[in-house]
Amino acid sequence: MPVRRKDVVLGIGDDCAILEVAEGKQLAVSTDTLIEGTHFPRQTSARNIGYKSLAVNLSDLAAMGAEPAWVSLALTLPEENPVWLKEFSEGFSELANSYQLQLIGGDTTRGPLSITIQIFGFVNKTRTLRRDAAQPGDLIYLSGTLGDAGLGLDLLLNQSQQTEQQFLIERLNRPQPRITTGKELVKISQCAIDVSDGLSADLGHICEQSNCGAEIKLADLPLSKELKAFYGADINWNNILSSGDDYELCFTIRPEYQDQIKIIEDKLNVKLSCIGKITPGAGIKYIDKDNRPVQIADKGYDHFNK
Amino acid sequence: MPVRRKDVVLGIGDDCAILEVAEGKQLAVSTDTLIEGTHFPRQTSARNIGYKSLAVNLSDLAAMGAEPAWVSLALTLPEENPVWLKEFSEGFSELANSYQLQLIGGDTTRGPLSITIQIFGFVNKTRTLRRDAAQPGDLIYLSGTLGDAGLGLDLLLNQSQQTEQQFLIERLNRPQPRITTGKELVKISQCAIDVSDGLSADLGHICEQSNCGAEIKLADLPLSKELKAFYGADINWNNILSSGDDYELCFTIRPEYQDQIKIIEDKLNVKLSCIGKITPGAGIKYIDKDNRPVQIADKGYDHFNK
Repeated sequence: MPVRRKDVVLGIGDDCAILEVAEGKQLAVSTDTLIEGTHFPRQTSARNIGYKSLAVNLSDLAAMGAEPAWVSLALTLPEENPVWLKEFSEGFSELANSYQLQLIGGDTTRGPLSITIQIFGFVNKTRTLRRDAAQPGDLIYLSGTLGDAGLGLDLLLNQSQQTEQQFLIERLNRPQPRITTGKELVKISQCAIDVSDGLSADLGHICEQSNCGAEIKLADLPLSKELKAFYGADINWNNILSSGDDYELCFTIRPEYQDQIKIIEDKLNVKLSCIGKITPGAGIKYIDKDNRPVQIADKGYDHFNK
Repeated sequence: MPVRRKDVVLGIGDDCAILEVAEGKQLAVSTDTLIEGTHFPRQTSARNIGYKSLAVNLSDLAAMGAEPAWVSLALTLPEENPVWLKEFSEGFSELANSYQLQLIGGDTTRGPLSITIQIFGFVNKTRTLRRDAAQPGDLIYLSGTLGDAGLGLDLLLNQSQQTEQQFLIERLNRPQPRITTGKELVKISQCAIDVSDGLSADLGHICEQSNCGAEIKLADLPLSKELKAFYGADINWNNILSSGDDYELCFTIRPEYQDQIKIIEDKLNVKLSCIGKITPGAGIKYIDKDNRPVQIADKGYDHFNK
């Protein structure tokens, strides 16, 4: 059943949707385009494309601590393909329904496959997670595990994945937007970003916009057992730090809120790992378990055009 | 100078924009994608693409009677091209600035040229122009003139335009969104649509959604002198009724509001022509000046893939 919300005064079918924002709430809005061959490999199933294109947009709401509300979809398709469209819609709706997200508009055009989604959520006026609100002394946390999706993509493109690596492919194709985590975090944090382009790049945005630096202890980065099993003793930190698509939240808190982390972890059954701290200055410094600096080539994540 | 609005709490640069909707206002939202080769010919200048992609979205706000506020832009470009981008931005900004429209986000991706714009405006709670609000007995009006953009496209594609036909090309490339007209119309009308796919198709939407029919007197359709000069005695009604891209407003009023039309025309210097009336039943009937039925082939507007 499609979601029907009371705050949608007029939905699909007119020149515009008409929407109601409750008093005391502000609107959080984000747009992301996904292009075949750039943001997902050509062999990705329609269902996974539908799921993922919405998931990456929901992740932007999560990174603001917002409550999802509405979504619009602009879909460009090379040809009429009812089977593809049905599967795309199922993947999309599965996720939309689970967040009570109503489709309020969109556009379908003919052309090379691309999906532009605009997502809308609500935040309370004083409680948002911004990129420019980190302060020296803050602890840096990361939800979930890092590097799985990037490794999953490598395996997929090399067609070398084994059954036990299916988890990594799932992390690539079906990221879990951290909506409930974001909504809890607004109580203890003012600063977050979602890791879409790699921790190195995304934490870099926080540092730039907050005018500060960061120190990350590599040994504290949360890694999945599947990723560790793949790398064995020879962990490729460069890949892990520059690989995107994990859609985990990187956030900062004042140290006095540290004991709240365990409460959120237990409440939401999510892993939140302290990976370092915000420092004065600029740039990200990586250190080993003995606090010695480690050089990491600064490489952005170009999705799968690596 | 880029527009800076007070209701934009957080603009470009974070995971989401954060926006404020004033009390008593509702949000009007619309999305349109423009694909090169479908929505504009390949020879269209970057400046005109920037202008037009925003204009067609503004036209959706006009058709709701909304006040423009914010816009987001998802741009897919085949290659880095600073000159193209500069000109596109100039065309876009020219129109954005004239409506105090602030760019609040977007996404740039690599791929075949396409532009998806999402536009946001405000409406007062009780005053919107919907497609489903026409009633038998309503008079049907049209702003401006009809068929110019479609004819301009034909001339452009046949490379046969002459100096005196430049007006028709301008109508294609630089449509004037009827924002101020829409804002006045909410005082006397409850029903409007913008003519993007041709009067026949778009008035058809009003009829379907309002469960009514329409009777249009061809002799009362407002035509530009340039269009009339082109056709001479042999007016191609089929082309005029099925050609889109004019972005004029088609709206209905109760007959008792008829004397308000002149006031709006004078105030805004816009031509508003009565072209027929809403009838019980279904479908659109075309009549000549002696009220005899005229058969018009029902042909949708497929932009320039005609």
